[in-house]
Amino acid sequence: MNAASLEFIPVQGMPEFLAGDDLVEHLINGLCANTTTLSNGDVLVIAQKIVSKIEGRFINLNAVNISTKALELAAQCQKDPRLVELILQESTDVVRCVPGVLIVRHKLGLVMANAGIDQSNVPGDDIALLLPQNPDASAQHLAEAMQQRLGVSVAVLISDSFGRPFRNGVCGTCIGCFGLSSLYDLRGHVDREERPLAVTQLAIGDQLCATANLVCGESNAGIPAVVVRGLADDYLKQSLPASHLVRPVQEDLFQ
Amino acid sequence: MNAASLEFIPVQGMPEFLAGDDLVEHLINGLCANTTTLSNGDVLVIAQKIVSKIEGRFINLNAVNISTKALELAAQCQKDPRLVELILQESTDVVRCVPGVLIVRHKLGLVMANAGIDQSNVPGDDIALLLPQNPDASAQHLAEAMQQRLGVSVAVLISDSFGRPFRNGVCGTCIGCFGLSSLYDLRGHVDREERPLAVTQLAIGDQLCATANLVCGESNAGIPAVVVRGLADDYLKQSLPASHLVRPVQEDLFQ
Repeated sequence: MNAASLEFIPVQGMPEFLAGDDLVEHLINGLCANTTTLSNGDVLVIAQKIVSKIEGRFINLNAVNISTKALELAAQCQKDPRLVELILQESTDVVRCVPGVLIVRHKLGLVMANAGIDQSNVPGDDIALLLPQNPDASAQHLAEAMQQRLGVSVAVLISDSFGRPFRNGVCGTCIGCFGLSSLYDLRGHVDREERPLAVTQLAIGDQLCATANLVCGESNAGIPAVVVRGLADDYLKQSLPASHLVRPVQEDLFQ
Repeated sequence: MNAASLEFIPVQGMPEFLAGDDLVEHLINGLCANTTTLSNGDVLVIAQKIVSKIEGRFINLNAVNISTKALELAAQCQKDPRLVELILQESTDVVRCVPGVLIVRHKLGLVMANAGIDQSNVPGDDIALLLPQNPDASAQHLAEAMQQRLGVSVAVLISDSFGRPFRNGVCGTCIGCFGLSSLYDLRGHVDREERPLAVTQLAIGDQLCATANLVCGESNAGIPAVVVRGLADDYLKQSLPASHLVRPVQEDLFQ
């Protein structure tokens, strides 16, 4: 690895996760099997799905009581009314509902399809998986457990795949962060001609999760964690949660 | 470097670029000084700004004829009317115009602030720098020149910083691509339970440019190119231009 380079190392060979599993134990074993030793300043990016799984965020769709609103929307978007009810329960607003598509604002502020509820790689056709209740807290919990068990100070990001306005294809996006500046402020910096920069904030969390998501892969590769090695110290000095990446509705300029 | 890992290697110590400079020559020298040897399957990510510079996309703002519409918008967004006129000339639609902000749809289809026109790290207060005229063609030209000069087959991406709806902070985004699938189609793939995937297309170009942008850095670090090493062969089999990442207006579901 080149001195100044940034490396994404997949943690391969991890098991299917179940509610209550000790993720830290599995990560330590997985890293060991990959002969990867965590160091201070490493960033561990974890797929949302396994955080949700170990936190037991499974819902049996047969136990969901369907509201009238969910029935109406389900007819519009042609989705399972039980799933639509769950999506509504997880959201504050419906952004778009057309055949095949239900985009909402999740209670965490995230604008996303299906409130991030997932049925792929989940055991059973009637089982759905919600986002972690508080992904920033999940990230902090994992970082603290790593510190305790391995004595190393790592940052933790939790990543999910998001569709995006104006752009085709999904991109990894940061929904949980501890130990680094999810959003890094450049105000006060200047360009090489000593002029203030037009760009003022870098979405560090999203920029790392984008590539980590690619390394994890969708479909059946099943790589749930990636170690990012070589991140500049500047971004590690301050811990800012991923909630800082969510732009408040009233400040959004693209609408 | 771990067998399956993905590495981002910055090409450091490059000069300030001017119109007509031989970028390939500078890249070869820069790689040599960084003791980095390009190999088949490497991806070279180049910052939009230096592509624009070597292609001579400088405009002297004093030579711009300001239209009435530009004057009106300039008053609304409190920007230099000469710059606003240029932005309009580069765009097909105004998405948002409020104090301090002018978001447009660039002729390339990209929805972005100021039509991507840049005045930072450009010599002279009256000089502005436009996007490359055809960033996909620029990427192809660079890849072919690398092939010719070094005998290696590399993919080339051209990256720019974009603000995004719903999210704070800028993120590296792919505006030019040759030699890899900017958008990778997963239709027909299944999850580990043999169910079709909900996610159908991966924004490979954007996912790589996001992290490359972080490695390049904003402000005065001046790293204009990054080598990405270790990308899975699947993504390199087909060359799809970055224009495939632009979602046609009528298909956008977030509005």
